[in-house]
Amino acid sequence: MGKEIERKFLVSGPAWREAVSEQHEIRQGYLCNDERANLRVRIVDGEKAYLTIKSGRGLTREEWEYAIPLEDAGELMEKCAGRLIEKTRHLIRRHDLTFEVDVFAGANEGLVIAEVELTHDRQEFERPSWLGEEVTGDGRYTNASLSQHPFRDWT
Amino acid sequence: MGKEIERKFLVSGPAWREAVSEQHEIRQGYLCNDERANLRVRIVDGEKAYLTIKSGRGLTREEWEYAIPLEDAGELMEKCAGRLIEKTRHLIRRHDLTFEVDVFAGANEGLVIAEVELTHDRQEFERPSWLGEEVTGDGRYTNASLSQHPFRDWT
Repeated sequence: MGKEIERKFLVSGPAWREAVSEQHEIRQGYLCNDERANLRVRIVDGEKAYLTIKSGRGLTREEWEYAIPLEDAGELMEKCAGRLIEKTRHLIRRHDLTFEVDVFAGANEGLVIAEVELTHDRQEFERPSWLGEEVTGDGRYTNASLSQHPFRDWT
Repeated sequence: MGKEIERKFLVSGPAWREAVSEQHEIRQGYLCNDERANLRVRIVDGEKAYLTIKSGRGLTREEWEYAIPLEDAGELMEKCAGRLIEKTRHLIRRHDLTFEVDVFAGANEGLVIAEVELTHDRQEFERPSWLGEEVTGDGRYTNASLSQHPFRDWT
């Protein structure tokens, strides 16, 4: 099990783009999603595939992840119709931290979210100028929720 | 992906016990379960662990299965409190087929179900005398359902 301590922010302006060191195309879908856990299948850059179980809400979540054959992931993704997320993930390394800036496409186009993974839940860190409002714990911004209630349908 | 074509029956009497060639202790739980798919974690004989995704209902279901570390399975099983199944699985080989007779324990004690996996959905087979009423397609008898609505609570 991994413990994921992650804070999530909106992003203001395009200044973050100058600092990107790496980017990846992510397609993911949710095979099941209930009050206890969700099951995600993810394909990165059309090449690598993972099955991930996440449990818990908010700042600290538990996570189990397994690499799976790409062919399986393709089949599983077909079961996720209507619960898909497409995004480009940009990695920005600052001091000891990596910020992931996700630019969503498809039904979530227009949404840009930055996440930073911390090692403990009260860890201080220097905020880049482009980091906007914090949305950690706002359930609407979880990818599982966005896959079923996409940004473009928000009123 | 595996395609699982499986028929399921109640069992009448103890005559099947004479034909058992192998048996295994199974503990399993459901991490998530919704209308599309369910995610099962299973530990066999306290030694081997698997993660299984099942999709579909009734006679023919799709299935993806991955071996996972026993330690992970123990952690995942803790997330399944209130959605657990304990049973002893008995294998009975007859001609080219294997019948699995599951004797349930815990909240499903008293329930005995025989399953047989077929290679196509209209396959004929000789029924052992101890095979009772067919319950294929009766959703109450799926293990996912039994984990949440156990046999002892049926009225």
